[in-house]
Amino acid sequence: MTPDNDALPAWHAWLEGGAGDEVTLRDNEAAWQDLRLRPRVLHSLAGSQLRTTLGDRALPHPLFMAPMAHQAALHPQGESASALAAAALGAGYVLSCQASTPLEDIARLVLADSGRGPLWFQLHWLGSRNATLALIQRAAAAGFEAAVLTLDAPVQGFRDRERASGFVLPAGVSSVNLTDRPVPTSLSALLAQAPTWHDLAWLTQHSPLPVWAKGILHPGDAVLAAEHGASGLIVSNHGARQLDTVLATAQALPDIVAANAGRLPLVVDGGVRRGTDVLKALALGADAVMLGRPLARALATDGAQGVARALRQLVDELHIALALCGLTQPGQARSAHLAGDLFAPKSAAAFVNAKNSRLE
Amino acid sequence: MTPDNDALPAWHAWLEGGAGDEVTLRDNEAAWQDLRLRPRVLHSLAGSQLRTTLGDRALPHPLFMAPMAHQAALHPQGESASALAAAALGAGYVLSCQASTPLEDIARLVLADSGRGPLWFQLHWLGSRNATLALIQRAAAAGFEAAVLTLDAPVQGFRDRERASGFVLPAGVSSVNLTDRPVPTSLSALLAQAPTWHDLAWLTQHSPLPVWAKGILHPGDAVLAAEHGASGLIVSNHGARQLDTVLATAQALPDIVAANAGRLPLVVDGGVRRGTDVLKALALGADAVMLGRPLARALATDGAQGVARALRQLVDELHIALALCGLTQPGQARSAHLAGDLFAPKSAAAFVNAKNSRLE
Amino acid sequence: MTPDNDALPAWHAWLEGGAGDEVTLRDNEAAWQDLRLRPRVLHSLAGSQLRTTLGDRALPHPLFMAPMAHQAALHPQGESASALAAAALGAGYVLSCQASTPLEDIARLVLADSGRGPLWFQLHWLGSRNATLALIQRAAAAGFEAAVLTLDAPVQGFRDRERASGFVLPAGVSSVNLTDRPVPTSLSALLAQAPTWHDLAWLTQHSPLPVWAKGILHPGDAVLAAEHGASGLIVSNHGARQLDTVLATAQALPDIVAANAGRLPLVVDGGVRRGTDVLKALALGADAVMLGRPLARALATDGAQGVARALRQLVDELHIALALCGLTQPGQARSAHLAGDLFAPKSAAAFVNAKNSRLE
Amino acid sequence: MTPDNDALPAWHAWLEGGAGDEVTLRDNEAAWQDLRLRPRVLHSLAGSQLRTTLGDRALPHPLFMAPMAHQAALHPQGESASALAAAALGAGYVLSCQASTPLEDIARLVLADSGRGPLWFQLHWLGSRNATLALIQRAAAAGFEAAVLTLDAPVQGFRDRERASGFVLPAGVSSVNLTDRPVPTSLSALLAQAPTWHDLAWLTQHSPLPVWAKGILHPGDAVLAAEHGASGLIVSNHGARQLDTVLATAQALPDIVAANAGRLPLVVDGGVRRGTDVLKALALGADAVMLGRPLARALATDGAQGVARALRQLVDELHIALALCGLTQPGQARSAHLAGDLFAPKSAAAFVNAKNSRLE
Repeated sequence: MTPDNDALPAWHAWLEGGAGDEVTLRDNEAAWQDLRLRPRVLHSLAGSQLRTTLGDRALPHPLFMAPMAHQAALHPQGESASALAAAALGAGYVLSCQASTPLEDIARLVLADSGRGPLWFQLHWLGSRNATLALIQRAAAAGFEAAVLTLDAPVQGFRDRERASGFVLPAGVSSVNLTDRPVPTSLSALLAQAPTWHDLAWLTQHSPLPVWAKGILHPGDAVLAAEHGASGLIVSNHGARQLDTVLATAQALPDIVAANAGRLPLVVDGGVRRGTDVLKALALGADAVMLGRPLARALATDGAQGVARALRQLVDELHIALALCGLTQPGQARSAHLAGDLFAPKSAAAFVNAKNSRLE
Repeated sequence: MTPDNDALPAWHAWLEGGAGDEVTLRDNEAAWQDLRLRPRVLHSLAGSQLRTTLGDRALPHPLFMAPMAHQAALHPQGESASALAAAALGAGYVLSCQASTPLEDIARLVLADSGRGPLWFQLHWLGSRNATLALIQRAAAAGFEAAVLTLDAPVQGFRDRERASGFVLPAGVSSVNLTDRPVPTSLSALLAQAPTWHDLAWLTQHSPLPVWAKGILHPGDAVLAAEHGASGLIVSNHGARQLDTVLATAQALPDIVAANAGRLPLVVDGGVRRGTDVLKALALGADAVMLGRPLARALATDGAQGVARALRQLVDELHIALALCGLTQPGQARSAHLAGDLFAPKSAAAFVNAKNSRLE
Repeated sequence: MTPDNDALPAWHAWLEGGAGDEVTLRDNEAAWQDLRLRPRVLHSLAGSQLRTTLGDRALPHPLFMAPMAHQAALHPQGESASALAAAALGAGYVLSCQASTPLEDIARLVLADSGRGPLWFQLHWLGSRNATLALIQRAAAAGFEAAVLTLDAPVQGFRDRERASGFVLPAGVSSVNLTDRPVPTSLSALLAQAPTWHDLAWLTQHSPLPVWAKGILHPGDAVLAAEHGASGLIVSNHGARQLDTVLATAQALPDIVAANAGRLPLVVDGGVRRGTDVLKALALGADAVMLGRPLARALATDGAQGVARALRQLVDELHIALALCGLTQPGQARSAHLAGDLFAPKSAAAFVNAKNSRLE
Repeated sequence: MTPDNDALPAWHAWLEGGAGDEVTLRDNEAAWQDLRLRPRVLHSLAGSQLRTTLGDRALPHPLFMAPMAHQAALHPQGESASALAAAALGAGYVLSCQASTPLEDIARLVLADSGRGPLWFQLHWLGSRNATLALIQRAAAAGFEAAVLTLDAPVQGFRDRERASGFVLPAGVSSVNLTDRPVPTSLSALLAQAPTWHDLAWLTQHSPLPVWAKGILHPGDAVLAAEHGASGLIVSNHGARQLDTVLATAQALPDIVAANAGRLPLVVDGGVRRGTDVLKALALGADAVMLGRPLARALATDGAQGVARALRQLVDELHIALALCGLTQPGQARSAHLAGDLFAPKSAAAFVNAKNSRLE
C-alpha cells in the first residue's frame, strides 16, 4: 500500500508530504473517518438542496478550494485552471499569495462566472504592517472579497519527505505577486519579526477587506482572533505541513466551536476527503470546509477538468449523505447526527480564561 | 490477505463491495467480533434446543436469509435455490422485490416445506402509495407472511468498488416482479419523491400484511416506526452499501433496544458471520438475525447445497455457543453473557424525546 | 510473519489452533502483554526466592504444566518426557485423562523426584457419577494429589484450523487410561448428559482427592464452585479451543479474584508466555499459573530436555522480574505493581448475587 | 519495514535490541508520538531562545546524551567522539562507567569547551559502599559535575535480540575505568548484594558530587529518592533493556512529576526522537531530556560529526516547535500545550503514602 517513493517525481513528495513523521498528516484524514454517522429515515426530503451561508455571504454549497502555493508546478495552467473549475462548480476559491499567476488575472477569470462561490486572497505576514496591508489593498482593488491571513507559519516546519526528495521549483515557476524582500538568516531574528495579536488588530482596522484568521487550533486563540478584529476563523493545521503531532483539525474543531460561541463564521480545513467528511464538519459546527491535496492531485492529473470532476463528486456525495441522514440543507446538520464519543467540548467560559494563559 | 481485485469477476465487487471506503463494511463484522462472551459452566443443558419466537410467530431458530437482489447473477437457480435451502433448514427467507424469479414461484416452493421458517417479501417505495400497496397485495395473495419496507435507500449510495469494477447485470437477469416506472433524473426530484412517516402510516393502515421497517439505525426512528404502525423493526445499514461510516449495526442495536422497550419485535442485520455473533445479537436484545453476503457467497459457490451447508454450520455453531454459555434456548441470552464495556444504552425516555429532534 | 499453514504438518494445526477465528487465542497472549509493570528500585533483595504456597501445599515456584491430551503425538516419549522434566524443574504437573501413557507409570516417575511440584490428574465428566469417581479413585491410588475436573467442554467447540488440516491421531496414540463408552450421536442428547452443579457437589463429597474446578471464566461460577465443594479454581478458557471471542483469562481474572475473596486457591491458565506474564498473574491475585502450548512446543522439539529448558527460562525470567519490581517472593506481588487501567473488578457482593442469575 | 536482522552485524542487535519481546522498546517512542500538541498563534516570539536551568545549573538547551556503555564498539573514537560533539553543541554529556576511554581523558576534552553543557559520570553499584564511593571520588577529581547512580539494574534483564545475535565485545574494547571484582554466580547471591535505600543515603552523605537517581519509574520511589539524599531524578527504563512491558517513560512521567512536587530537578530518558518529543517532555514537567540510541546510531555512522549533526537537528526542531506553540523559552512549556487525555496524575499526597507500601 505504501507507494515506492523513490520512483515518484520530487513534486509528489512536495505535494503529499507533511511535517516530521507525518503523524498529523495521517490523523487529519483518520479523524474524520473515525466519526460515525447515525442516519435518519422517512423524514421528508422535498426541497433538498446544498445552498448555505457563511456569515452574510450566500454559498452555492459549503466547499472551498484551499490556498496552495505554486500550482504551476503541478499543471501548466496552474491557478487559472483550478480557479476556473472552482468557479464553474460554485466552490469558493482561495488564491495563494505564492501563486504563479497575477492575482488580477485570476480575479478576472472568476468574477466572470455568475454561479461562482467566494473569491478570497491568502497571504502570509510580509515582514511589516505596511507591506502586508499593501498586498491586501491590491487584492481588494482586483475584486477579491476577503483576505486570509495565515498565522501558523512564522517559520516553516521540518518537512522530512519533501527535504529528502530534493524538490526545487521548476524553472519559470515563482511567486509573481510578491516582491523580493530581505529575509533574516538566523532563526531568532526571523522569529523576532513574527506578527502578534497587536499586528492583527492594526491590520483588521486598516484593511479594506474582511480578514480571516487561518491556522487556529486552540480555542483560546479563536476568542483572541474575534477580539482583535478577525472576520472569520479557519481551523487548520496547514495540511499537517508545519508541526507534526499537532491535533487533527476534526479533533480541534469542537472545542473551538464551543469557545467561538457563534461569534465568527468558521471554516475547517484538513483531511476532508469525502462528502461524509463534509457532513461531519457541518455537524460539529463548521459553516464550510476547505480541501487542498485532493484538488491539487486532480489539477496535476487533468487540469481544470480534473478539479471540476473532483468537486462534482464531492458535491454529489454531500447531497446524498445529507439525504440519507434525513436532512434537506447543510445548515441542518447537528452533532446529534454523529454517534459515539466526541472530543468532549469544554464550556466556552473555560476558553475565555484560557486565552489569558499565555499572552504577550 | 487482500484479494487481487483485478483478477476477480465484476460480480464479486458487486456482491462484496460497500459504500465509499468500506469503513462500515469492515465495522459491521468487527463490531460483533469485538464483543466478548463470558461463558457459564455446570448449568443443566437438558432440553437444549433452538426454537424461539418473533412476536407471535414461532421460529425453528432465529436465523433469516436477508433480501438480496438479482440472485440469478450469482447462480442459475437464483432465488429458487436460496429459498429452497432456507426452507429446508428452517431459516426465515426474505425475497427481494428485485428478484429474478416470480414471487409466486418462490412462495409455492417455500410454502410446501412444513419445517420452514417465515416467508417475507421485501420492497422499496415504488414512487406512490398505490403502487407500493399493490405489490404488497400481490405478495399477500401469493402467501407471503409479511412485507419488509426498505427505508434507508431513497437514493442509492456511492459504491466505489462496484463502480470501479464496471459491473452490469448479466443478460437475462432482471427484476421480473416490478413493472417499469419513470424514475426522476435529477437528484432533487428523486429525493422529493422519497416516502415519509405519513406514507408509512398510510401503508400500514391499508396493507393486508404486517409491515416491517428495515434500515433503522437511530433509536428515535425506532420509536417513530412503532407510532406509525410498523409491525417490527429491522436494524440494518443495508449491508454497509448506502452511506459509509454509519454506525455498525451491533453498535446501533443497544440504544434501539432500549428505545423500543419491547414494543416491537426486532431483527438485526449486518456483519453476522458466526454462531457467536448470533448469540451476541440475542444477548443485546434482538429476537432474530439476518445474514446476507455469507449465504450469497454460498449460493454462488454451490447453489442450494451451498446455502444449506452454510446455514447448517451457523445453526450448529449457535447451538454449541448457547450450551457453552450455559443456556438451553435462544431466548435466555442476556447482556450478562457479554463482558466489558458495551455501547451504554441511554434510557428509553431520552429517545422518545429524540424522535422530535428532526421531524417533518 | 504468518506461517504458511499449508506447509506445516497437521499436528501443528491441532496443537496451535483455537476455536473459530482464533480471536481469543490471540487475546490470551495479548491480554498479559498489554498489562504494564511499574518497577521499584533499591528495595532490599536479600533472601530473594521463588517458593510459594497453593492453599496448604508448598510449591518450589508457581508454575504448572497444563493438562494436554495425546502428547505421544508430539514426541515418542509423550507424557513420560514432559512429566519427568516438570518434576526435575519443580513445576506442577497435570496429567490429562487423554494421556497416551498409563497414569500409574507417570505417577511412579514423578513421585520419585523429591524436588517435584504437585502431581494432579485431569479428567472430563465420564457420562456418569460412578464412572467419573472410579477414575479419580484410580488416580488417588496411584499417588496423584488432586483431581482437576474440566467444566468448559460438555461439547467440543469448532476448531476451524484443526478441522481444515485434516488432523487425525497417529497410529498407536490413544487414551489408554479411559475405557470405551457409548457417546450420544445427537447434540441435544450429548448436552442432556452434561454434568451440573449437583454432580460436582456429589463428586466432591465422594472423591478421595480434592477436586479443582477448571474452566471458570465467570465470577458467579467461582462462587458456585466454592459452594459445591471444589477445592480450588482454575481460571481457563481451554486454551481458546472451545468458544471463540470469550474473555481472555487475564481479563477474566480480576473479577473472579474479587468474587472468590480468598475462599479458594486459584490458578490461571492461558496465554502465559514470559516471566513477566507470571508476575502479572500473581499481581492480579492468582496463586499460580499453568502453561500449555509453550511446553508442548518444547516437547515436540526436544522432548524432556526441551521442556526442562523452557521451564528453566521461565523460572529465571520470573525471578528477575520479581527482583526488578523490588520483590523477594512471588507472594508479594500486588496490583500496585501494575500501571494503567485494569479491568475494574466489581465488589464481591455483586457477584454473589450474579450466581443466582442463571441457576438450574 | 522490518529490517532483515540476519543480515545485520551483531552490534546492531546489541545497540537496538531491548528486553524480551520489546514491547516497551516500541512503547517508549510511541508514547511521545501519541501525545498531541495544541499550537498557539500570534504570541510575540521576540527574544526566542533555548537556554534553561536544571536545578541551579544553567543549560544552553535541555538536551543530554545518555550514558551508553562501550561506545568504542560503535566507532573507533568511541566516547571521545561523542563527548566532543556533545560539548560543541552545548548538550549535557553523561559518561558511562563502562566507557572504553579513561574518564580523565573525557573530562579534559569536554572541560576545554566553554559552551559545553553539564559533564556527568554514570555508575552502577560496585558491590560495596566504599568501591562505589571511590569511583565517584575519582570522577570528582577529574572534574565531573555530578554522579548518576543507575538503580534499575541490580541484575541484567533478558535481552532476547542481543542474545540471539551472539554479540560479544570486539577485541580491545573493555571497561577501562573499572577494576575487576568477583561477581556472584548465583542469582540469589547477586541479588543479596544489590544496594538499598540505606546505601543511597550513605552514598549521598559521603559523595563529593551530587548524586542523581537514574531509573525511577514509580512515584513512590521518586519521593524516597528525595528523602534519601538524591540531588535529582532521572525517569528512565534503561532504554527498555531491563524488564519488558514496564511503563514507557512518557507514561510514567506525569505521576512522578506530581509526586516530586518540584522538590528535585528531573530529567526524562527513553524514546525521545524529535524536537516535538522534547517539547512534550518539558510540557509534562521534565526539566531536561536524555537521548541514547539516536546519538549512538549517529556515532556509529559518522563519529563526532554524526553526533553533532543529530544534535543540531534536534536543537533546531525544538526551537521551531517552541515557536509554533507560541513559546520563547523551554521553561514556558505547560501541559496546556498538550491536548487530549493524559495519564491523569494523582495527587502528590497519594504517592507519599505509596512510598510506604513496600519498604525494606
